[in-house]
Amino acid sequence: MSNPDVMDKLVSLCKRRGFIFQSSEIYGGTGSVWDYGPLGVELKKNIKDRWWHAMVRSRDDIEGLDAAILMHPRTWEASGHVAGFVDPLVDCKVCKGRFRADKLEDAKCPQKPSKQPGQHDACALTEARQFNLMFKTHMGALEESASIVYLRPETAQGIFVNFLNVQQSMRQKVPFGIAQIGKAFRNEITPGNFIFRTREFEQMEMQFFVEPGTDMEWFEQWKAMRMQWHLDLGLSKDRLQFHQHSAGELAHYARAAFDVTFDFGGTLGFQEIEGVHNRGDFDLTQHQQYSSKKLEYFDQVNNKRYVPYVIETSVGADRVTLAALVNAYREEAVEGEAEGRVVLGLHHAIAPIKAAIFPLTKKDGQPEMAHAILNDLRNSFTVDYDETGSIGKRYRRQDEVGTPFCITVDPQSTGDQTVTVRDRDTLAQERVAVGSLKAYLAAKLV
Amino acid sequence: MSNPDVMDKLVSLCKRRGFIFQSSEIYGGTGSVWDYGPLGVELKKNIKDRWWHAMVRSRDDIEGLDAAILMHPRTWEASGHVAGFVDPLVDCKVCKGRFRADKLEDAKCPQKPSKQPGQHDACALTEARQFNLMFKTHMGALEESASIVYLRPETAQGIFVNFLNVQQSMRQKVPFGIAQIGKAFRNEITPGNFIFRTREFEQMEMQFFVEPGTDMEWFEQWKAMRMQWHLDLGLSKDRLQFHQHSAGELAHYARAAFDVTFDFGGTLGFQEIEGVHNRGDFDLTQHQQYSSKKLEYFDQVNNKRYVPYVIETSVGADRVTLAALVNAYREEAVEGEAEGRVVLGLHHAIAPIKAAIFPLTKKDGQPEMAHAILNDLRNSFTVDYDETGSIGKRYRRQDEVGTPFCITVDPQSTGDQTVTVRDRDTLAQERVAVGSLKAYLAAKLV
Repeated sequence: MSNPDVMDKLVSLCKRRGFIFQSSEIYGGTGSVWDYGPLGVELKKNIKDRWWHAMVRSRDDIEGLDAAILMHPRTWEASGHVAGFVDPLVDCKVCKGRFRADKLEDAKCPQKPSKQPGQHDACALTEARQFNLMFKTHMGALEESASIVYLRPETAQGIFVNFLNVQQSMRQKVPFGIAQIGKAFRNEITPGNFIFRTREFEQMEMQFFVEPGTDMEWFEQWKAMRMQWHLDLGLSKDRLQFHQHSAGELAHYARAAFDVTFDFGGTLGFQEIEGVHNRGDFDLTQHQQYSSKKLEYFDQVNNKRYVPYVIETSVGADRVTLAALVNAYREEAVEGEAEGRVVLGLHHAIAPIKAAIFPLTKKDGQPEMAHAILNDLRNSFTVDYDETGSIGKRYRRQDEVGTPFCITVDPQSTGDQTVTVRDRDTLAQERVAVGSLKAYLAAKLV
Repeated sequence: MSNPDVMDKLVSLCKRRGFIFQSSEIYGGTGSVWDYGPLGVELKKNIKDRWWHAMVRSRDDIEGLDAAILMHPRTWEASGHVAGFVDPLVDCKVCKGRFRADKLEDAKCPQKPSKQPGQHDACALTEARQFNLMFKTHMGALEESASIVYLRPETAQGIFVNFLNVQQSMRQKVPFGIAQIGKAFRNEITPGNFIFRTREFEQMEMQFFVEPGTDMEWFEQWKAMRMQWHLDLGLSKDRLQFHQHSAGELAHYARAAFDVTFDFGGTLGFQEIEGVHNRGDFDLTQHQQYSSKKLEYFDQVNNKRYVPYVIETSVGADRVTLAALVNAYREEAVEGEAEGRVVLGLHHAIAPIKAAIFPLTKKDGQPEMAHAILNDLRNSFTVDYDETGSIGKRYRRQDEVGTPFCITVDPQSTGDQTVTVRDRDTLAQERVAVGSLKAYLAAKLV
């Protein structure tokens, strides 16, 4: 969808229909932080649970983890974040504007917007200063004596420092992986684009530990498996592309890196939603050095000891959620109606509500029957009940939030115990016996 | 279980078997912060999912939310945390010890441990200083110009500021509730007791908005429902008690408060795992005042406008996890064996692994058949495979992590397609056809 204002429409739909609200909105909002509303939390939870199932529960060779956000500060010295996780900033002494020194060409001089800062003769830019993107706080009794701790800027380090704890407690053999979902924080200078780049975000990361020499083979496997995961989530094939990091883009420790990029349309275009990286032995070696603890694996079969290489797959949970929304949004003409409809054509597995149940009218026992169906389905699926307004209006409401099926109780229903089930995408309506509704939905909701 | 060292045994079991590790252990640990390992993350996720189902998905009148950790700083002025979320601290000028002024009777003078600080003639205590328990950080480009933000010390405020966003987008009518699960942070002076009191923890909170005058009736309902939830989780009835806040204990805004307490045994004894509070209209009124935004509900049926009262139910996810572990831990003699067994008698619904599959021997097609069963069960249940050591040893390993069922493939299995299923608690073994295993487990795992 190349429609440049889809993002604006989504921001509005997400607020109006309870997907995503601006954080602390009544206080004017918090800079680039968002809250997930009732439907947003279900959508994101479904995406996270799907990733967890694919990466952890369905495999023997990956273990889950949930490490804390507050880690020992040495962690970030070892990882290189204290020294290197910085953006260079310049100030203009005239207009007091502040800009990223490496992104001046994208900035506008506030006094002369046709020029970039420094290219207008009244500009007086300072030297670049290094600004660390980690949020810093203090742990302990009083600020002056307490130790500095950081909010983790990535979940990965929680996995590296627990490598031996997990390997030994779970008796895993290399190759194996550790996966986790959790919040991370970056004090970005230029966040934006809704939930695409935010200061508080959620990652789904997996580090796969392999024997050196087998790393590129595993890298290729994970690259393919991760792209398939996004396709299985319903993201369109023509909106997904790999972007290979060139020698200039590669992090100094990376042996190879590909991004999975998704076409968000408009001015945003193709952007990274996941990174697949061959990190070599950089991380474990650094932590060995900084902690003076061996982080080696002993291969009993071949009687050898080594520091494994790491293949990392790192997804932004918020970015995938946004990609799923952009991918699903469509506007359609409806025959015989002036207004048309907005549909979120979400994959059934991640739709926040699986089925909505309506009584056609509020009398003749229809609401009671609809409630009985609701309560019967509730243990198996997330369901909604609506009796307000015309059926057409209720269909539109569910279309707009991506509900795959609408079930209507009508005068015939109370007699023959059947209901109509209407499909969000085909608009086809089928008459289904109440007794077989659960099985009908289970078969369709895959 | 009054055994005073159960907690020590649990800390050890949790590390050894991959439930809970000390955070950043290779760097000497982070003060009172813990990481959940592969089995711990599943146990806690099961508890959280069970709460989410009970509180959100199974009800029409409660909506989910996932608000950000970083909120607008005015939030914490309105809530009273900036001014009032403090502990008074005193220092000893002689020994440099630091103590909570209101807990001096529990402290020991480092120079004379038989005395409390201040009661030994060499002590020189300072005046008490107020220490705010919120973690503080800066958001924005450079520290000096940036605004102070706090890591939320409770999730509740994210719900209050979103009250109208949720009510309006979901077209809810009072009475209704908003529920969320998320991390909160408190820079505690004296954290401890494993995951009981930690600086980073996870809350499961629900705020139920009611018409003033109906609040005590709802309070009693929620009190009863929340106690039942803990009983349904398998916590022993004789380890659960209500503790009513006396007039002196009540927070200034609270109209009534009960804690659900659990007997952790040993020196810890009965401690709060959940609070049920009648908060009146304190929170919404405060946020109205600080934001200058109306936070009223309009009752269309009775044509009246009011600020709802709030009944709050607030559970510590880590505390319930610890309670479940303490409650489940038992040591049993085994007939004919010297060593006995350690069992985590966890409720089936929260056990990290539901079934383990063993081939009796590593030959004759048994491992292949066991793997086929594993892969068949995997989409429905979390399962484990183990072929190492004697069957007795493998049973003990699963008992210790609370796996309800062990499935063994033996020589008979490859012939008649049956397996033995052994029950963790009764030790009974049944022969079950492979084709009906899924239904057998589904029926037992409720």
